[in-house]
Order: sequence, then structure tokens, then C-alpha cells
Amino acid sequence: MRAAVVFKPDSMNMAEEVRDFLLSIGVDAEVCEQSREIEKYDIIVSVGGDGTILRTLQMLEKCPPIFGVNTGKVGLLTHANPDNYRVELEKAIREMNVEEFMRIECFTAEKLVALNEIAILTAVPARLVEFHIAVDGVKIESMRSDGLLASTPIGSTAYALSTGGPIIDPYMRCMLIVPIAPFKLGWKPWVVGSKRRITVRIRGRPCLAIADGHRIVELQPGAEMEIRESPHPARFFSIGNRMGRITEMLRQMD
Amino acid sequence: MRAAVVFKPDSMNMAEEVRDFLLSIGVDAEVCEQSREIEKYDIIVSVGGDGTILRTLQMLEKCPPIFGVNTGKVGLLTHANPDNYRVELEKAIREMNVEEFMRIECFTAEKLVALNEIAILTAVPARLVEFHIAVDGVKIESMRSDGLLASTPIGSTAYALSTGGPIIDPYMRCMLIVPIAPFKLGWKPWVVGSKRRITVRIRGRPCLAIADGHRIVELQPGAEMEIRESPHPARFFSIGNRMGRITEMLRQMD
Amino acid sequence: MRAAVVFKPDSMNMAEEVRDFLLSIGVDAEVCEQSREIEKYDIIVSVGGDGTILRTLQMLEKCPPIFGVNTGKVGLLTHANPDNYRVELEKAIREMNVEEFMRIECFTAEKLVALNEIAILTAVPARLVEFHIAVDGVKIESMRSDGLLASTPIGSTAYALSTGGPIIDPYMRCMLIVPIAPFKLGWKPWVVGSKRRITVRIRGRPCLAIADGHRIVELQPGAEMEIRESPHPARFFSIGNRMGRITEMLRQMD
Amino acid sequence: MRAAVVFKPDSMNMAEEVRDFLLSIGVDAEVCEQSREIEKYDIIVSVGGDGTILRTLQMLEKCPPIFGVNTGKVGLLTHANPDNYRVELEKAIREMNVEEFMRIECFTAEKLVALNEIAILTAVPARLVEFHIAVDGVKIESMRSDGLLASTPIGSTAYALSTGGPIIDPYMRCMLIVPIAPFKLGWKPWVVGSKRRITVRIRGRPCLAIADGHRIVELQPGAEMEIRESPHPARFFSIGNRMGRITEMLRQMD
Repeated sequence: MRAAVVFKPDSMNMAEEVRDFLLSIGVDAEVCEQSREIEKYDIIVSVGGDGTILRTLQMLEKCPPIFGVNTGKVGLLTHANPDNYRVELEKAIREMNVEEFMRIECFTAEKLVALNEIAILTAVPARLVEFHIAVDGVKIESMRSDGLLASTPIGSTAYALSTGGPIIDPYMRCMLIVPIAPFKLGWKPWVVGSKRRITVRIRGRPCLAIADGHRIVELQPGAEMEIRESPHPARFFSIGNRMGRITEMLRQMD
Repeated sequence: MRAAVVFKPDSMNMAEEVRDFLLSIGVDAEVCEQSREIEKYDIIVSVGGDGTILRTLQMLEKCPPIFGVNTGKVGLLTHANPDNYRVELEKAIREMNVEEFMRIECFTAEKLVALNEIAILTAVPARLVEFHIAVDGVKIESMRSDGLLASTPIGSTAYALSTGGPIIDPYMRCMLIVPIAPFKLGWKPWVVGSKRRITVRIRGRPCLAIADGHRIVELQPGAEMEIRESPHPARFFSIGNRMGRITEMLRQMD
Repeated sequence: MRAAVVFKPDSMNMAEEVRDFLLSIGVDAEVCEQSREIEKYDIIVSVGGDGTILRTLQMLEKCPPIFGVNTGKVGLLTHANPDNYRVELEKAIREMNVEEFMRIECFTAEKLVALNEIAILTAVPARLVEFHIAVDGVKIESMRSDGLLASTPIGSTAYALSTGGPIIDPYMRCMLIVPIAPFKLGWKPWVVGSKRRITVRIRGRPCLAIADGHRIVELQPGAEMEIRESPHPARFFSIGNRMGRITEMLRQMD
Repeated sequence: MRAAVVFKPDSMNMAEEVRDFLLSIGVDAEVCEQSREIEKYDIIVSVGGDGTILRTLQMLEKCPPIFGVNTGKVGLLTHANPDNYRVELEKAIREMNVEEFMRIECFTAEKLVALNEIAILTAVPARLVEFHIAVDGVKIESMRSDGLLASTPIGSTAYALSTGGPIIDPYMRCMLIVPIAPFKLGWKPWVVGSKRRITVRIRGRPCLAIADGHRIVELQPGAEMEIRESPHPARFFSIGNRMGRITEMLRQMD
């Protein structure tokens, strides 16, 4: 078994410690740059926070199972911390219980993939963009707003939490569509099935499409894009009580 | 093929006309009282509005496919109106395209089943009830509020529309949990998978549990109930563009 | 100076202790039933919680300054607790800094007065009422909902907190109008000046009008009522940092 | 009486027509550039839309009464359109009924003044800013969000409409504080009296402070600013039924 250890810039020492531990239990581990190369490894160990995992996933189409050692703030995607990772990581590798979570993708000038959300935001602060949204070709909404999110269930506790959207069971497969600061009285978040195609047309102003807060693409007025489930889900070693983890995180927010 | 024609009290003449039409095209049709007996028919034709269909469904465990002739306001569950029902009904019977929509059920003193939602409301107006909510045994929320809804996707455009909940794709299988007037700042609607078990515990005051606005059960303080997917979905003849129907209904609301 | 000591049923002993303390510092104090008679006293000392004060205010048109000794949960209207009331009450009487807070009133079959809010709620659980709302004769909103609140600024942290309404500076003079569970997508809370007249017309179902959660009047479909500022504000001994008290209470809610 | 006629670039011909009309009824009118010079005129006639008036107000400290001839979309601040302005403008000048509406101001590197709102927005799209908000020195809220609005009552139907804020009676004097996409569950809009001082401290990222969508100032992390009522209100010729105008505009939005 080959393991790629990726890391947040400030956690390089910890990454080397994790690699040494993996070598000591017979796993052929290497500290790696975040690049598409790590697709070829059998597992990925991320040393950092949720952001490190999201950035790593930006590189990957096919996704080896990820184990996160958390060196930052409380995360929803990580499995252990520097104090207990040895026990947890060894157990994870022994049991190989892996969970898949859907990602979404969107074709613009380049392809965007996201585990949490694709945000489409006005490129001119305080200036509204006109959005036209359809699902499988049926127009469901049009509005002027600061932006629009298409979120996965996992992403419902990320950027989408800042909007009027619901918390969605991470084990469901669906997409959440929700505006940011819509200049409109009557609107609702929409939750649609994962096999649907969401079409978003932009009018009036340029926008930025941002995947998981990391990859940014500029969109011109008139741009139209399709958002749908990616054929390449993210894969993580199982976390026992994910629902409990979410409610704990929500409770700690306030 | 045997058809039961059920009807809203003010639409009895229309029901008889529908029966005569069915007989004329070779369907063995009878005008029936709403009762559990109609489970035995091959199809049900409801003459009335969405409320007539919801009331009929209260009687049924196993559900023959329903065709709705709308004699009331715009409905989301009906298929035709008195002007065009002949063509639509004959086509529906010929093609027999049937859709299933999940229902939810809840065990209290008696069993409640709902296509839209089970509402649990304070029995004492303007007095808060304390709710404790768990999903598969994991506590997700507790709050004092006027009430609580557990809604199906189909129900997201019914009572749940009045709350902060999302519109949910009617073809999804999941449950929406959302409070009514929670005396709490930090809360969110929750959307959970259809295989989950929602447990609701009530404290402080008696409540009423109300299925689809029709069947009412009193609950005492301390009552605990489980809400889950019913093994008996509702069955309807297909409606072509259900998404479009929903957005049209939402646009007409304001 | 004559002081009326009113009390929550479970706090009678404490009320007698407060009376004895008042007598010991030369105030002519009596333990009193909550009745309109206490209007004639120079000050009122309430032993109980916010609810005790609200109930007392239901009796009063002209309102002597109120001092609250809190024997219950954290309150927004009380001044001291059983441990520190001696110092605080003596200081309050010596300084006689008094604040006025607007109340609202509403004429139906009988007159209702409220420090927090007048709630108009459907009398039939889970059945919508149609509301038509005008301000100074200009129709601002109509909707079907479970209910409607007209709240004072002080009341914005009471029942109105459960709705989409804002927190309002308690020293402002205005009225908040906000629905409970409106079956409508496009609506907003309204904040209007204290000299405005709010007219509410009810259609379709009977309602209950409830002042501060205590006084209840039944309203028939077709009823129309006017809500406006009461000429008789509530009067309280000053609380130093009322804004800070509110934010602390909000933080403790979650 | 001297009148300055200001105009939207595309409405210059109409501005000249309005000037000629004013001259014909004996008013000493000039077509003017939008600049601080127009403070010295007795009245201002704006030919354009709400935006033209907002831009003009950016130039003014002392504000002569404004009359708006609307050449654009439906506006809340304009008085007439090209078809009926002669009658309305002559009547307005004859009666000289003038209304004042509070403006807010904010001291950063330079002073900002706004009739609608001061928006403080993250300068880095999709990256949260940490806000700390106090009212008269009492901390009321802290949160990470995309931005924050301080709005006047008039502004409650402008940018603030896109947030969870209420509609506020334009004749009230108060300030609305409301976040844009707060990454926090428990928060509320706040409405505070016009004599209050709102202090906003920014952490973590640079921001843009934007007055009425027109004037932009960059703010560095750590910046602190005070927002308060401006001593210089905006002045407009009276509009008869302003409440009715607002509700009509809200109804047309959806």
C-alpha cells in the first residue's frame, strides 16, 4: 500500500512525523506536493484542516480514500488530531471502511469540481447580477442578487450555512440551490435530486465562479453554465457519528 | 378494471358524471364513500381538490393509483379539470404511467400517516412547547416553539412552505424537519434521508399531532414519538411537468 | 410613599420579606393581590419573574414605577434578585430614576393592552386565517397564516423573537408587525412609527387575540381591529445597561 | 428662486426641456453638473432615476429640496414622469411642502454619507470578514460574514431588502444593522435609535465601505469606524402616499 501525505504549509514537520509513523507500520508513505500525481496512491493522509483537504480534492479526479489529521480548528472532514492519529490511522488502514460523498461539477471556460459548493458571485461589489436558474430545462427561479450557491449535502454546513438553506444529511445525494442576498421578497432554497441538471444563466454583470473557495473562474455577462453531479465522488475513511459531529459543530458556532 | 370515484361533498354531481364517463369507456366505476374499502379498487378518481385527495389517502394503506379531477382552486396533486378530464383520464388509464411518492408515518396513541406533513402543535395557543429531536438516536436539536413539522418532499409546498424550509424535489426521498416559530436564535431546517428515524420528545405542554391537516391526535407532555417513512407510498397517475407545476404555483402565490 | 408588593404564587414568603424590608426603611408597604387597586400606590415591587410583571400590567391603566425582584429565570424586566434586592431597591427609591416604555392597545369586544405584543392566532390548529393589514388606512399586506403579531420594541425579544422580526432598541417608539408561519413566499416584517394606526381584518376562521400571553379574547371571522400606541406607558425603575442585558439574554438562548 | 437641474447622462435633452419649463414659469433654472456647487440653489430638479438622486446627494452636505422627474424604472424617490412633470413640479414649487429624511454618516479615511445604506463588504470574494459591532459602546454582535449593512429607514427597501431586515416606516428615525450571509446560526437584524453610535470593527481581511452603491473606500483589517445619523438630512418635495408607493413597489418585485 502506498500513501501520499499532503500538508498545509505550516504543518510540514507534522507531515514528516506522520510519514515516519506510516513507514513504521509498513505503509510505503511519501510526503507529496498537492498535485494530480497523488491520484495514483492507494490512500491520502492530509495533515492540516478542512481547507487542506478541499485544496487537495481540487487536484483529483479519481479520489483515493482520504484520512485527515487535523492541525487546525475543529473540522468536519478530519479524522484525528496530532495526539491520537496513530491509533486512528492504523485502525482506518486495517479496516478500510470508506465512505463516498458526491461532488458537483460545472463547465465554464474550464471545469470546476467541488465537494462543498460552487459559488457564483458578482465580480463588482454591491452591484447585483441577474440569475436565471433552470432544473432539467424547467425554469425555477430568476432574481437579481449578490450571488448564487450550488451546494452538495456536505457543503450545507459550509458557505451555504450563511444563507437560508437547510442542513442536509451528508449521506443524501442531492443539490441545494440558494441565492446570496437576493433583491426579491419571494424566494426559497431548492433541494433537487442528484441526477438533475442545473442551468444557470448570468446577465448584466461579470461574475466569479468559485469552487470550494479555492478555484476561481471569471464569467462574462451572458454566460450560461450547467451544474451537475460529478462522476468522481470524494472518498474518505469512515467517521463513526457524522450527524453528531455536525450538531456539535453547529452548537459551537454561536 | 374497477374504479372508485370519491368526491368532495359539493362535487357529487360531477362525480356522477365522471362515473358515467368511465362506464362509457368500459371501466367498471362506482361512486364511493371515502373509506378503507376503496383500497380494493384498481384505480381511484378523486373529484374535488388537493384536500379531497389528502382526505382519501387518510383511509388507505395500500394505495391504488389516483387520478384527480380538480373542481376547486389550483392544485398540485390533480390531473385535469371538468373541461378536459375526459381526454386526460382516458389517456391515463390507457398508459397506466404511475408515480409513487413517499409518505411518512408516526406512532402515537394511534398511527398517523401523511403525504404532506405531520404537524405537532402546542395545544395551548401562545404557549411554547419544548421539543427534543433526534435522528437515528443522535440528538440534533432542542428548542421551545409553537410547533414542529416533519414533512415529505411533496409536503415542502404545503404547510412547510410557511416555515423557513426549502422547496424539495418531489421525486426525492427524504424528510424535512422544521420548527414553527422557535423561540431560539440559532436553528436550521434539516433534510434527512428517508431511511432515518426521527424521534420527537415533547415536554411542558400537551400537543396536537395533525396528519395532513386532517387527522388529529392529542399528545401529553412527556410523549415521545417516532416518525419515519411509511412502507405504503401514495400512488398517482403521472403528471408530465411536476417541477413546472410547482414553480407556477409558487409564482401565483404572491 | 406607599408601595404595593405583588407576587407570583410561589413567592409569597419572599414578598413578605420584601415588604418587611420596605417597612424597615420607612416605606409604607403592603403585600397586595394583583388588581386595579394597585394603581393608587406610589411604586410597585413585583416578586416573581417577567411573567409576574406582565400579569400585573394587565391590571393597570396608569402605571406606578415598577421594581422587579426576580425569583425565577433570567428576566429582561427585573432589577434585582433575592440576594441583592435590598441595596438595589433602596437605591432605586432614593434616586427615583424612572423609564417609560410604550404599550400598545387594541379594541375588540374588550380592550386589550400589552407591553410585549398582541398576538392574533388561528383558533383552529393547523388551519390558516386570512389577514388583511393596513397602516393609517394604506393596505400594506394580506396573507394567510397561523397568526400575526403586533409587538412593541420591548416585545421584540419576547414572542416576536420567534418570528423573522428584528431586535428593536427598547427606547424607540414604534410597532412591529410580523406574521407567524405565513403561507406566502414574499413578505417582510414591518416596523412603523408609534403614531400610526394598524388595522387588522380577519377572514375565514375565528381567532384568539392574546395580550402578553395572558389575556385572551375570541374574534369571529370578519372581525376588524385597530392596534395603536396606548396612552398609558409602562413605567419601570431604570436599568443601567438595558442593551447589554438584551445581548446577554440572546447569547444565553442558544 | 434658483433651480439646479441635474441629470442622468442619457437624459440631457429632457433636462433641458425641464429647465425651459422652469424658466417659462419664472424660475431661474440652470442645467448643472452634479457637484457641491448645487448646494447654493434653492431647489434641485433631478432628471433620471433613484440612482441619479443618490449620486447627487453624494455631493451635498446642506440639501436643497429635491424634485425627481423619473426617466427610468419605477422609483421610490421620484415625483413625476416626463408626461406629468409640468403640473406636479409647478404645484410642488407653489406649495413648498418639504420632507426630511435622515442620512447616516461614517468616518473612515474619508467621510461617507448615505441616504440608503453604508455597506461594508469583504474585498476578497468568498472570503469571510470578522465583524465586531457595538452600539453606544455595548457590544451587540460579532460574526464572520460576507458583509454588513447599516441602513436608514428609507434604505430598508434598497440593499437591505436583500437581507433578513424589516421594511421600516420611512418617517421613522432609526438605523438598521444587518449582516450579509453571516456564517453563524443565531443572529438577528437590529433596529436602533437615531441618536445611537454604531461602532464596527473589522478583522481578518480588507473590506470595501460603499455609500449608496456609489462611493467606495477601502478599509484595512483592524479598521474601526463609527456610523451615526448625519446632521444633514436629505430634503425632498413631499410625496402624498409614500407607504402606498412602497407596498406597490414590493408587490411588483415578485
